[in-house]
Amino acid sequence: MIRSFLLMTAAFSLAACGQQTASDAPSQMTNTYKSSQSVSGFDKTLKMAQAKLDVAMAAPLTIPVPKDPGGGYTHETHKANGFMLYDVGQLYKLTGEKKYAEFAGQAMLDYAEVYPQWDLHPAKKEQSPGRMFWQNLNESMFLLNISQTYSAIKETLSEDEREKIETDLLRNMADFLSVGAPETFNKVHNHGTWATAAVGLTGYAIGDEDYVEQALMGLDKSGEAGFLKQMDVLFSPDGYYNEGPYYHRFALKPFVIFAQAVEKNNPEQKIFEKRDGILKKATYGLIHQAYGGLFFPINDAIKEKGIRTDELVHAVAIVYDLTGDTGLLSIAAEQDTFVLTPESRKVSQDLAAGKATPFDYKSMRMGDGQNGDQGALDILRASADPNGLVLVAKNTSQGLGHGHFDKMGILVYDAGHEILRDYGAARFLNIEAKYGGHYLPENNKYAKQTVAHNALVVDETSHFNGDVRIGNQHAPTLGRFVNEDGLKGTSAEISTAYDDVRIGRTVAMIEDAAFSGPIIIDLVEGHADGTHSYDLPFHYNGHLIDTNFELQADPLSRSPLGTKNGYQYLWKVAEADPVNEISQVTWLLDQKFYSLTSSVPENTKIVFTQIGANDPNFSLKPEPGFMLRAKTTGGVSFASIIEPHGDYNPTAEYTIGSYSQVKSVSHFESGAAEFILIETKAGETVGLGLGAEDNPDGTHSVDVNGKTMSWTGPFKLFHSDTHLAAQK
Amino acid sequence: MIRSFLLMTAAFSLAACGQQTASDAPSQMTNTYKSSQSVSGFDKTLKMAQAKLDVAMAAPLTIPVPKDPGGGYTHETHKANGFMLYDVGQLYKLTGEKKYAEFAGQAMLDYAEVYPQWDLHPAKKEQSPGRMFWQNLNESMFLLNISQTYSAIKETLSEDEREKIETDLLRNMADFLSVGAPETFNKVHNHGTWATAAVGLTGYAIGDEDYVEQALMGLDKSGEAGFLKQMDVLFSPDGYYNEGPYYHRFALKPFVIFAQAVEKNNPEQKIFEKRDGILKKATYGLIHQAYGGLFFPINDAIKEKGIRTDELVHAVAIVYDLTGDTGLLSIAAEQDTFVLTPESRKVSQDLAAGKATPFDYKSMRMGDGQNGDQGALDILRASADPNGLVLVAKNTSQGLGHGHFDKMGILVYDAGHEILRDYGAARFLNIEAKYGGHYLPENNKYAKQTVAHNALVVDETSHFNGDVRIGNQHAPTLGRFVNEDGLKGTSAEISTAYDDVRIGRTVAMIEDAAFSGPIIIDLVEGHADGTHSYDLPFHYNGHLIDTNFELQADPLSRSPLGTKNGYQYLWKVAEADPVNEISQVTWLLDQKFYSLTSSVPENTKIVFTQIGANDPNFSLKPEPGFMLRAKTTGGVSFASIIEPHGDYNPTAEYTIGSYSQVKSVSHFESGAAEFILIETKAGETVGLGLGAEDNPDGTHSVDVNGKTMSWTGPFKLFHSDTHLAAQK
Repeated sequence: MIRSFLLMTAAFSLAACGQQTASDAPSQMTNTYKSSQSVSGFDKTLKMAQAKLDVAMAAPLTIPVPKDPGGGYTHETHKANGFMLYDVGQLYKLTGEKKYAEFAGQAMLDYAEVYPQWDLHPAKKEQSPGRMFWQNLNESMFLLNISQTYSAIKETLSEDEREKIETDLLRNMADFLSVGAPETFNKVHNHGTWATAAVGLTGYAIGDEDYVEQALMGLDKSGEAGFLKQMDVLFSPDGYYNEGPYYHRFALKPFVIFAQAVEKNNPEQKIFEKRDGILKKATYGLIHQAYGGLFFPINDAIKEKGIRTDELVHAVAIVYDLTGDTGLLSIAAEQDTFVLTPESRKVSQDLAAGKATPFDYKSMRMGDGQNGDQGALDILRASADPNGLVLVAKNTSQGLGHGHFDKMGILVYDAGHEILRDYGAARFLNIEAKYGGHYLPENNKYAKQTVAHNALVVDETSHFNGDVRIGNQHAPTLGRFVNEDGLKGTSAEISTAYDDVRIGRTVAMIEDAAFSGPIIIDLVEGHADGTHSYDLPFHYNGHLIDTNFELQADPLSRSPLGTKNGYQYLWKVAEADPVNEISQVTWLLDQKFYSLTSSVPENTKIVFTQIGANDPNFSLKPEPGFMLRAKTTGGVSFASIIEPHGDYNPTAEYTIGSYSQVKSVSHFESGAAEFILIETKAGETVGLGLGAEDNPDGTHSVDVNGKTMSWTGPFKLFHSDTHLAAQK
Repeated sequence: MIRSFLLMTAAFSLAACGQQTASDAPSQMTNTYKSSQSVSGFDKTLKMAQAKLDVAMAAPLTIPVPKDPGGGYTHETHKANGFMLYDVGQLYKLTGEKKYAEFAGQAMLDYAEVYPQWDLHPAKKEQSPGRMFWQNLNESMFLLNISQTYSAIKETLSEDEREKIETDLLRNMADFLSVGAPETFNKVHNHGTWATAAVGLTGYAIGDEDYVEQALMGLDKSGEAGFLKQMDVLFSPDGYYNEGPYYHRFALKPFVIFAQAVEKNNPEQKIFEKRDGILKKATYGLIHQAYGGLFFPINDAIKEKGIRTDELVHAVAIVYDLTGDTGLLSIAAEQDTFVLTPESRKVSQDLAAGKATPFDYKSMRMGDGQNGDQGALDILRASADPNGLVLVAKNTSQGLGHGHFDKMGILVYDAGHEILRDYGAARFLNIEAKYGGHYLPENNKYAKQTVAHNALVVDETSHFNGDVRIGNQHAPTLGRFVNEDGLKGTSAEISTAYDDVRIGRTVAMIEDAAFSGPIIIDLVEGHADGTHSYDLPFHYNGHLIDTNFELQADPLSRSPLGTKNGYQYLWKVAEADPVNEISQVTWLLDQKFYSLTSSVPENTKIVFTQIGANDPNFSLKPEPGFMLRAKTTGGVSFASIIEPHGDYNPTAEYTIGSYSQVKSVSHFESGAAEFILIETKAGETVGLGLGAEDNPDGTHSVDVNGKTMSWTGPFKLFHSDTHLAAQK
């Protein structure tokens, strides 16, 4: 029993997911289409689905009486049945073979036979319980699938059969999910979107306008709730989803699937044009929040999730069908996964015809919040090269219950890899032995805490004291965002993360001939009157190679760095003193070196850490990090250069550029204007002037080692060759 | 100066290496050719080399007076010059463009001008010093390159120019490396091969038969030394190289390059047919010692080295030219790297023409030693799928100074990854900040020690007490090797690794319907009379998911596991007690689960470790492991099942088969015959009978839980469905 259930789950999940390749490991993204990858990819998906279903359809569908919660046998069986019936319906549409329609019809009749008898689920969740599943969210997902199946095969059924399926299954379920659960259906939240989309699709499938209207406008059809309202609220005007890309992905599917049905059935709605094309923006927004094929793992996120997920495969196909944007074909080539829809077939055909063009990756500020005024996710990309240097500044709002306490935290990517990383969620999705596959206790206690991020921690306490209710009330104040050739920058600050300290961060990605490629300038400041301790952690990815200071890890023992706020999960590996207030740390990842050179206050310590203390159950990944640790009065500033360099090539046996080019970095202030000066080992200087306000015409001057540096506007790059000329 | 030198090094290394792609990270190997990868790969390599050389040739070659040791400026400059001149010569041959010949001619004249004045190198190594370089090995490599250049462009030079280059550079250098250094030239060792190949190629280039004869037959032309003798001795009859694949790769280049010249100039030698085609066998042997594109990292090995290395690119092209074996084209497709030779061009053309066929990966025993009687490297592959389950049993001899103390150690690969891994060498190749790029002190003190391997340690002491001189005198005694459908197995033992304990290991890869795929049975035994402690470490790769026993890592502290023989580098993370003498540990890697279920003696402890104690300089990688630890009298046995299972798919959000199917494993003995019984959770049993001797007709019986199991031959698999029928 168990074994056949497992096989079944695998079979249908795979079919639903298309021709998933053997490994979903982070792939090197390319922005051009490789001709070998997807030639007839759709046909392969189709054939594989047929082969699997032909085996599965040899026996009638197993329809167990609901009993188990998520992950259990009855739950997983009904879930797999829903995906299977979706595929069966699509196969009938695509092939016209009667056997698919017959199987699906019989299965739905079988469900119609039993569904009315099912009262609330025995393992029901307190909030929003289901009947087939423990929560009605799963019921919505099931109905979303089978309403499409019904629509596909309805023509093959007798009048009596239709009557039975529509009454006892589809309407029964749709009523349960709409009038039966108004608190979900009318909620402006992704669970509401799943419900409205499922009910709306049911309306189209059985030809009941009433369901469609309720779905679009809410139960009372006032427009105060329902799908259109959700479209207005759940994404920011730039297409950012408040909880971040991991949940964005999840929410996207009912939006695009139902919208597509609205477009077909009610084209006068122009649903894809609403709110300046918000659903298209949401699809592009999700693609832009990825690197190396994986989504930025901000907030609670399973790090393996990326552009190959079923939800985004559907969305890309639907949006390509609408727009014909051949840049999306490059994304589809990278997905190399197809679904059983005409739109996915078209994507496959156009890929095979060589129509793909590079996707237009670019630097952007994606405003957060319904009106785009709750902070922003700032993405700085050195170029359109998807494997190039990328910095993500998390200047967003909290992101509700799944949000992490990492105001102005940064992530850095290069050469296809994470360089400064976010831990993501502490969770082993669906792995029962690991806390039932749920979020681990360490998710709240470590992964959400500020110290788990590349973000400033004051007094060893997390932002908003780790209280999500307070966090949800405050977003950072954004400074200016610039996106010019060779100079991209952003800044933000927040005064509410701590009572007595206003923290600000300015990051810029610059190009200058003194360096072999783009580098990042990172200025982190704490503005305060009193005395505070400041920790600025950098969770680097790679092997430590070199430091400019003497560094000795304790050879014989390890102990936790602290006792609370996430610090208890970090082993203290070493503590060291920077040299002349300069800290330089170099690590190696794959074939490149990365140096982080910081100007730090007097008496700063550099503390090296490894995750894994207080982790008796091996819940956490043993990742390394280091933090700049200072205790100061009257505020603090850490000015750092993050510098990819060199080439480690063990295949051809050469190593070049293994040393940082940075000799020193200095931070100067004059009033509210600031200046970062980089001195290279070759004797060159590069400067970045930072204006106090977001005013392109504001003029600023800062005394830099006795010379007055002046400029106009919030960001001004003084190149190594123009530096002297720019001096007064 | 430094900067241009670095650029130069990069340019020429890249040119020599062909169209190296951005990342050499372990690639998923495929055994079929992907049409997009290498279409006109050679042409791209050619164009890239031309573009780079056109820039570089704008100025005359820099020829500094020898001063620096390896890694230093003058060393790296001459090294880069040699590779560059090789490319320039090949480009002339391939394009006929005069500019290449002119540049190379002038460069060689410039070298001829200064070389005679150079006495022994100021930083000369004590043994085998050079003049241009600190050791004459590098001088041989330089001459190997430029003798080919001279051969290519000779026709364009005047009589006077030839005279000068031949006398002052080529002969001067060849004499220095032959009669001037008989201890290297006549040595049967890879340094000798580099010398004889370089001198022999010089002989062909300038038309001096004497050099060729000395190269082939040794200085006295007796055949007691020289290239032919090296061919007879340095590889085993199966093409195994005593030091392992890392140095095999290095030694292979002069063999195939010079042999190719012999084939062209002295075809009557039939050099590629000698010793049953030993140079072809050596090339295939190296390919077979790879997984996921990387060589098995046994002994001192940089783990990133693999099939893309320049040496193997040359060898594959040369052997393909000789044999036309289209299976080699699949290897070339995976290399996706070309060199500037007609043979490499042919490979590229045939790849583009779609001629590639899958490479024939298979299970094999590669005998070690000149006569193949010094142990063997046993490779068990579940199938020809290069990403399938593979077990490597290191039943070889010591492997000289670079050998590790891991008799009968194993490595396991699956799904493209290392599953049970070898640390390889403790070294950051060419990274100056890491001990000058040399082998780290931790290489001898940790990486070579037995505990760093998946090999049995007795009394916390390494094999041969860590003494390489003793190790070199002893090889394991091989038991039988079987390679049948669904049953592959090998065994070996050694009585000299420890004074009082004879250790043996039998491993088998079996397929049975009770499991979702092939599994490994691993029986490790220590035969002894007295009382000893036994540690059997498993260096697993992945995240710990589950154990069948209670496991609690110490939350608040870490201390080293021991004080010597490598133990001092392991943090003790946890210690636990198996349940009913069964230990089961499950970990997750990428998308699969791996369980190791062991039958262990009473009072065995399971000790979990992490590398990194006593490592103040961050020299080691923090890899996890666990060991079965028993103290017994009268010997020990650990019988384990290594079982890949399940599918973790975070993209499609399902997990199946996350639990091991193994309920228990038991080990029975009757006299010298043994029986391993596996009981599954589904109630099935699978058995493996092991005969005592290597006799296909020997009959054996073992009492297994009161039933007599009988069979003939050294390995007998009792399938889950035939088990009862086979009982008496």
